[in-house]
Amino acid sequence: MKLLTVDTISQAQDKLYGYAQHILPKTETVTIENAVGRILAQNAFAQENVPDFYRSTVDGYAVTATDTQGASESIPTFLRVVEEVAIGYPAKSTIKSGECVYVPTGGMLPAGADAMVMIEYTEMFSADEIAVYESVAKGKCVVTPGEDIAKGAVVVKKGTVLKAEHIGALASAGVWEIEVYVPWRVSIISTGDELIAPYDTLAQGQVRDVNTWSLNALATDCGFSVVRCIKVKDDEALFRAELEKAKQDSDVVLTSGGSSQGKKDMTNDVMDSVCDEGTFTHGLSIKPGKPTILAFDKASATFMIGLPGHPVASLTVFQALLVNLWKTVTHQPPQKPIPAKMETNVAGAPGKTTFLLAKIYISDNGEVVAKPVLAKSGLINSMVDTDGYIEIDMNKEGLKKGETVFVHRFGL
Amino acid sequence: MKLLTVDTISQAQDKLYGYAQHILPKTETVTIENAVGRILAQNAFAQENVPDFYRSTVDGYAVTATDTQGASESIPTFLRVVEEVAIGYPAKSTIKSGECVYVPTGGMLPAGADAMVMIEYTEMFSADEIAVYESVAKGKCVVTPGEDIAKGAVVVKKGTVLKAEHIGALASAGVWEIEVYVPWRVSIISTGDELIAPYDTLAQGQVRDVNTWSLNALATDCGFSVVRCIKVKDDEALFRAELEKAKQDSDVVLTSGGSSQGKKDMTNDVMDSVCDEGTFTHGLSIKPGKPTILAFDKASATFMIGLPGHPVASLTVFQALLVNLWKTVTHQPPQKPIPAKMETNVAGAPGKTTFLLAKIYISDNGEVVAKPVLAKSGLINSMVDTDGYIEIDMNKEGLKKGETVFVHRFGL
Repeated sequence: MKLLTVDTISQAQDKLYGYAQHILPKTETVTIENAVGRILAQNAFAQENVPDFYRSTVDGYAVTATDTQGASESIPTFLRVVEEVAIGYPAKSTIKSGECVYVPTGGMLPAGADAMVMIEYTEMFSADEIAVYESVAKGKCVVTPGEDIAKGAVVVKKGTVLKAEHIGALASAGVWEIEVYVPWRVSIISTGDELIAPYDTLAQGQVRDVNTWSLNALATDCGFSVVRCIKVKDDEALFRAELEKAKQDSDVVLTSGGSSQGKKDMTNDVMDSVCDEGTFTHGLSIKPGKPTILAFDKASATFMIGLPGHPVASLTVFQALLVNLWKTVTHQPPQKPIPAKMETNVAGAPGKTTFLLAKIYISDNGEVVAKPVLAKSGLINSMVDTDGYIEIDMNKEGLKKGETVFVHRFGL
Repeated sequence: MKLLTVDTISQAQDKLYGYAQHILPKTETVTIENAVGRILAQNAFAQENVPDFYRSTVDGYAVTATDTQGASESIPTFLRVVEEVAIGYPAKSTIKSGECVYVPTGGMLPAGADAMVMIEYTEMFSADEIAVYESVAKGKCVVTPGEDIAKGAVVVKKGTVLKAEHIGALASAGVWEIEVYVPWRVSIISTGDELIAPYDTLAQGQVRDVNTWSLNALATDCGFSVVRCIKVKDDEALFRAELEKAKQDSDVVLTSGGSSQGKKDMTNDVMDSVCDEGTFTHGLSIKPGKPTILAFDKASATFMIGLPGHPVASLTVFQALLVNLWKTVTHQPPQKPIPAKMETNVAGAPGKTTFLLAKIYISDNGEVVAKPVLAKSGLINSMVDTDGYIEIDMNKEGLKKGETVFVHRFGL
């Protein structure tokens, strides 16, 4: 008989990361039209200078700055207009001293020009001559080639979860196709004769299956591809058959069920025999969520995670292990948690990492306060009105009122 | 000729809200399997008590609490085991004084029992008798019917953007089908001969179309349904034809193009004639983003928004007007911004609301600091590395170093 291993969160994370080298996510090419929420798998480089010409930021006249020296409201300088540039078209002329060219906002400056005079500071003097009432410095109201983004520079870094701002920057630099990570395929298997789907009639003593649906939602929210959500009777042969099947088409198999000892043993034994590397974590020193089982099958490159039955714990373990691993292998920066002051003292569980649900609010004196959401074990209503969770270190006695804590969101 | 109206942000928001009564979003029924990210359109009520029986939170024996009075490590009480309840099945017996029933975690207590003794505090004494070494109070380790969620109670409130926690709570309360809002259909039309798609070759003087793609991404991220992204030449007839077409299948038409006066006039004139209510806002007193045009067509129930060409402004105006309106009409609570201390002084623009991009970091002494991201007008690279934006009130001179500000994210 194998020794049962109870790991800390970081021990389990390290083990998962070790095995993850065998199932590093594939990448695929998508256009920026369909890329929001995807994770960039390679640095994206600018295909050209942005802008790729001397661009005016105003409607006005492109000039040689030295020509305007001394010009003022009372003593204008006179310049000859040799061209009118249209936006989107090249400036054709090369201006010499005494000449200027009309350029609209976003338009191209002609060769020889090094500054713009806003139209408000000029006046038509004759058919082809303007009076300039302002002295401008070199570079005034001009964006130089590559000043925004230089050709070849990294526009968006690998590991970025793409948002509108990134897509805009990619478009501006002429990047249309990008390499993104293919999400892991996840199967969710719930076990338990007592578990009833939300759409079935409840008989006495039965409880609703909660975890299948919350895990399906969180996995989808994180961008994973959910292959199937199924429920299996408490039958070892059926459970084994479903794990074997899931190995063929999933990168991660999540099982969720009761956390009674008998069921835990069954989950452990079947996962251990179905996976060539066997089970390697048989419990976590966390609260809640101890009954967590981890296994890996090298031949099919599949992780199996037996999640605790506790509805809050199944989400926090999913987050602390699978989301954490996914962020690591896709080179995402860690989530930015929200710092807040604890509203009250909360006891920890020395020797165990405690996951505490919390709600955030802003106090009358403008401080961000974290209010712990405490509930009897297994109550799900407590989850509805929270903003995330706080991790209490296993070496801490607890949290003190007024102490700064970090509230993490569920998801990427 | 109509008077041109420059509105403040809140004036424009009020006008939009007035017209929005004509295009309140429809609702549709989905199952909780496909509901993550959707917005709940009706309060969801518990279909049953959760739990709907007296449920044990431990493995042990269901007892009458008074039977255990005085029991201790040295002086046990003896009880007769009359049943073993299996999880998922009803308890059949009614216990009398001197009797107990084995109940696993999550199992149902028999009638007559009002507390649980954990198995660790008991010992088998004979084939059908146990010794109890603990005195328990009524209700110990028992969840009562409806204690988690009472039948008929609101499980998740209307206007909630559904996350894993909400889906789990709905499942637990026997809610399978829910009513959610149908997202508005959005068409994005960019105009401008100078604008080149990211996949086309750039000629001298041309610039990449940025806004179409960043707006497409932000609209998608907010859950809107993007009908099409198209580009139209600077031709009034073509532009008019596209607006007429978009009226037929879109709730919102976004146009984006240069912000030169000529183009603004064209956008305004065409929108004004295409929409039966005409244009009602011809500029916003914000920085950046003044050249914004708003129109409404009552017959087809379509908003038209002529967005500024400035890439940052097109996103902030989208956010401040359309996302704000969508959140209001779908009864979503306002976004919770992140409070932070300003890193430096920043000048505002009295008389105009300023949208300032900002990056958030945590200082060495644990404070959340907002670093303003300043850039020359129209530079897009500044957008890549930001966490959101700060709104500087139009009546403020600016922001002072150390002042508390609120950083808003783009999106819902």
